[in-house]
Amino acid sequence: MELGLVGLGRMGGNMRERIRRAGHTVVGYAPDSESADVHSLREMVDALAAPRVVWLMVPAGEATQSVVNELGELLSPGDVVVDGGNSRWTDDARHAEELAAKSIGFVDCGVSGGVWGLENGYALMYGGEAEHVSRVQPVFDALKPPGEAGAVHAGSVGAGHFAKMVHNGIEYAMMQAFAEGWELLEAAEEVTDVREVFRSWQEGTVIRSWLLDLAVRALDDDEHLERLRGYAADSGEGRWTVEAAVDHAVPLPAITASLFARFSSRQEDSPQMKMVAALRNQFGGHAVRSSS
Amino acid sequence: MELGLVGLGRMGGNMRERIRRAGHTVVGYAPDSESADVHSLREMVDALAAPRVVWLMVPAGEATQSVVNELGELLSPGDVVVDGGNSRWTDDARHAEELAAKSIGFVDCGVSGGVWGLENGYALMYGGEAEHVSRVQPVFDALKPPGEAGAVHAGSVGAGHFAKMVHNGIEYAMMQAFAEGWELLEAAEEVTDVREVFRSWQEGTVIRSWLLDLAVRALDDDEHLERLRGYAADSGEGRWTVEAAVDHAVPLPAITASLFARFSSRQEDSPQMKMVAALRNQFGGHAVRSSS
Amino acid sequence: MELGLVGLGRMGGNMRERIRRAGHTVVGYAPDSESADVHSLREMVDALAAPRVVWLMVPAGEATQSVVNELGELLSPGDVVVDGGNSRWTDDARHAEELAAKSIGFVDCGVSGGVWGLENGYALMYGGEAEHVSRVQPVFDALKPPGEAGAVHAGSVGAGHFAKMVHNGIEYAMMQAFAEGWELLEAAEEVTDVREVFRSWQEGTVIRSWLLDLAVRALDDDEHLERLRGYAADSGEGRWTVEAAVDHAVPLPAITASLFARFSSRQEDSPQMKMVAALRNQFGGHAVRSSS
Amino acid sequence: MELGLVGLGRMGGNMRERIRRAGHTVVGYAPDSESADVHSLREMVDALAAPRVVWLMVPAGEATQSVVNELGELLSPGDVVVDGGNSRWTDDARHAEELAAKSIGFVDCGVSGGVWGLENGYALMYGGEAEHVSRVQPVFDALKPPGEAGAVHAGSVGAGHFAKMVHNGIEYAMMQAFAEGWELLEAAEEVTDVREVFRSWQEGTVIRSWLLDLAVRALDDDEHLERLRGYAADSGEGRWTVEAAVDHAVPLPAITASLFARFSSRQEDSPQMKMVAALRNQFGGHAVRSSS
Repeated sequence: MELGLVGLGRMGGNMRERIRRAGHTVVGYAPDSESADVHSLREMVDALAAPRVVWLMVPAGEATQSVVNELGELLSPGDVVVDGGNSRWTDDARHAEELAAKSIGFVDCGVSGGVWGLENGYALMYGGEAEHVSRVQPVFDALKPPGEAGAVHAGSVGAGHFAKMVHNGIEYAMMQAFAEGWELLEAAEEVTDVREVFRSWQEGTVIRSWLLDLAVRALDDDEHLERLRGYAADSGEGRWTVEAAVDHAVPLPAITASLFARFSSRQEDSPQMKMVAALRNQFGGHAVRSSS
Repeated sequence: MELGLVGLGRMGGNMRERIRRAGHTVVGYAPDSESADVHSLREMVDALAAPRVVWLMVPAGEATQSVVNELGELLSPGDVVVDGGNSRWTDDARHAEELAAKSIGFVDCGVSGGVWGLENGYALMYGGEAEHVSRVQPVFDALKPPGEAGAVHAGSVGAGHFAKMVHNGIEYAMMQAFAEGWELLEAAEEVTDVREVFRSWQEGTVIRSWLLDLAVRALDDDEHLERLRGYAADSGEGRWTVEAAVDHAVPLPAITASLFARFSSRQEDSPQMKMVAALRNQFGGHAVRSSS
Repeated sequence: MELGLVGLGRMGGNMRERIRRAGHTVVGYAPDSESADVHSLREMVDALAAPRVVWLMVPAGEATQSVVNELGELLSPGDVVVDGGNSRWTDDARHAEELAAKSIGFVDCGVSGGVWGLENGYALMYGGEAEHVSRVQPVFDALKPPGEAGAVHAGSVGAGHFAKMVHNGIEYAMMQAFAEGWELLEAAEEVTDVREVFRSWQEGTVIRSWLLDLAVRALDDDEHLERLRGYAADSGEGRWTVEAAVDHAVPLPAITASLFARFSSRQEDSPQMKMVAALRNQFGGHAVRSSS
Repeated sequence: MELGLVGLGRMGGNMRERIRRAGHTVVGYAPDSESADVHSLREMVDALAAPRVVWLMVPAGEATQSVVNELGELLSPGDVVVDGGNSRWTDDARHAEELAAKSIGFVDCGVSGGVWGLENGYALMYGGEAEHVSRVQPVFDALKPPGEAGAVHAGSVGAGHFAKMVHNGIEYAMMQAFAEGWELLEAAEEVTDVREVFRSWQEGTVIRSWLLDLAVRALDDDEHLERLRGYAADSGEGRWTVEAAVDHAVPLPAITASLFARFSSRQEDSPQMKMVAALRNQFGGHAVRSSS
């Protein structure tokens, strides 16, 4: 089939490649991109035969909204837009509504895979009406990993990004779990070879996982991670997971602790711990460390 | 080689079977067990040629201490005792010292594998002197999974149980991570097929893991887990992990949250939330729910 | 001065009384209220001489928005609206903008005091332009407790509700702190009189506080809180505090833990702990408790 | 009455002064102290008429154990030892047993008050047999604050230190609560005067408390706490509270979060966040910050 693809960054570019390898035609567009196949959204739309499918792989928020707006003007009734970016699930219903007003379909799709996706396939979680999803199915089939798993029609519009968001929340807590365990093992004088302990866990244990494999790979490269700083960014999905939990009154202690650990990791000095130090000083005359 | 094995419960019995399949001789003993090969520790010791290796697979604490004491009387200089049970790592140094006073070696070994170990192999983490570990190596090789990973000499005495304990702490937080994500997905009206979302994650995602495979298996059996109560026991290892963290001043927010979630799950009614309700009532006249 | 007051519930009714005791004129309105002084917003507005001050004490969200909309039609340039309800601080900028378009001023005010406010005074935190705040000052002075503290101009529009929201977040964690301590003391067999321990803390300790006084009062009424269920509601402010923290990348582990404890307290059975139980069962053959 | 007092540090010295002001005789001893009244434990014991009461105010652990051992040799049947230091409650039963073997009584006493105790009185929580407690009562009455509260016979031996330990656990979480709230307010651009917000809370709010008063005092001295580092020590009691909770299967999420925040505050760089950064790098090619 033919696909319009907007956004040719690291993710988008690799996805174009994987879709083409499956025999489909991709017309890729990105502003100011040397690898673009066309020079404007209009040119991309004109290059596709109706009914069209256009996949967005652009930053969440204003950038995605802007492309949705433009496509609303350019596309025709019966076309379908897929948002494969990291949009917040609450944006999806609005986009679907705006496009539905012009009889254009909308599917949201969470994509996982990172730098490994081109070769191994991308895990896909999508939401929308069955009629729209079926139009995109050949592309989903091209992108997903081989095997039975790796792609799911998770529910109505928004379900794809919601499921991807929860995936990332789980990922945060799993990473935190290995990180906590690693720090504790490194602190124990009895344990003299933490890297080999991690390696041993790759077979026969309850915690064997791809993240464990990656941890071993990282430790093989830098046994005590001395070349890194304990500084971790966070993406929107981790924050949205906590907000979704608060909205639904679902307790998420481990995932939230993982997000907060990242927040703390980025502070040069902790304001709240200054207050704790100040209070200790007030009531107990405890020594404090002055900033200098 | 020959091995004495004390403890023939679910774990011990299967381990005997796996060691025998590898061609070794196992003399198994357990009090009041129909499957025991001998009828007393003394008989077991007499059945083995010196220098002997005796593996304990009995409950941690008093039961293990009692067998260590008895073996201290029965064994000979040059023999080696392996504690493969779930002992607290702080017990190991004491056991090693007590046996060393009689020139008997000691190795501690954390064992992971559960009901899957007989067929797939057991993950092993052991601590002790190289000389003692090498004496047990053929048994470790028989028990471990095929492949390069699955067994590690983690350090000095205590390192094996410490590493296994941390494994379990990580396991707690990983289970909690999937559990939190599952509850949040179930709460989202957009997501209509949570089980299929979980299944899809088995390929191409960052969180693919054996625990995820088990979650899918559980959901295949009972899609909304309606046949279970939200009640989770905890073993010593989870608690010891938190205590070790406190001892070493290592923050473990996700693992500790996972332990506390289990504590809460076992309370019919939460005393602390009664106090919160009482305080709300005092200052705000908020309605409280009376117990009836 | 004259004040229009919209909303005569438990809070609004008592506030009217306290303002009148200070010698001011209050024209109170609430739909379908027997204690209303007038029968419509229009009647209330007509009863006040311009420039007017109208204080809202109605539920946050749609109800407040609706009254703001109506007052925008009824009031005159130079009038000032005060939102003393529990609005989310993000609503304030919108309300201020909508009213400013008609040259009507806006002040947001967080109010703390509960059932004790009538006699002891209400703590007030307000935000807005100095010119608008000064118009309301006599009412603030009437409502606040005696003494120097108890009222603050916290910053620009939204600052009042933001400060009140954070107050409530702190309150959550303080209540949780006492609640956790109480449960632990009740669990210790050495401690035979937990209520008297709490009472003793009211003098000379670091933790003496009004909440401690309330805890003692509650325990005097029901020593082991046997007449209560461990069930605690939460208001919007606790949730918004966590969301504000996520927005600002500020780690709030204790406050968030307190919110999540309330979420858990309201679940008959915990879905996430069902998943933990299911996973334990899968890998270990651990006994699970069936729901029956 | 007469009292022997061992330990004349900041706490012990002030306590001697307060007891003397109440008209009692104190014979104070501390090794190498210029302010000691006698030069040895033996001299102290000889200076007191039997039956004696000796109060220990020395560091927990080995130092306290050593003095208990010595006093066991020096004192006579019918004497009473009071441990007013910060001993772990689990030490108390052992000390009581050792002294009981010589017919010497034992009372444990948690003391709160810090630098304010001399003037305001010390909050006291004590455990032991009524017969022994009554012997110490005049000293308790001298040390405690005026008013009805401030001292409690909490239960059997160990109950005093247990109650004080829980007091400190609650204190940790209350300090954390104010600290989190302060950081969030400082992060909000709407709130322009955080110090005045804190000051306003001292009247009429749910969170008014001595700790809040101390926070205001600290902010008056250094409005944005710029002269402090976000570095907070922790004492044994916070850790023991968490361990006691783990022993009793009581969930303490807020108190534990407060302890872990202190652990993190003391790390130059977080090992666990290095692992999180390493994992992000592995799966996503996310930029990491190298240590340099």
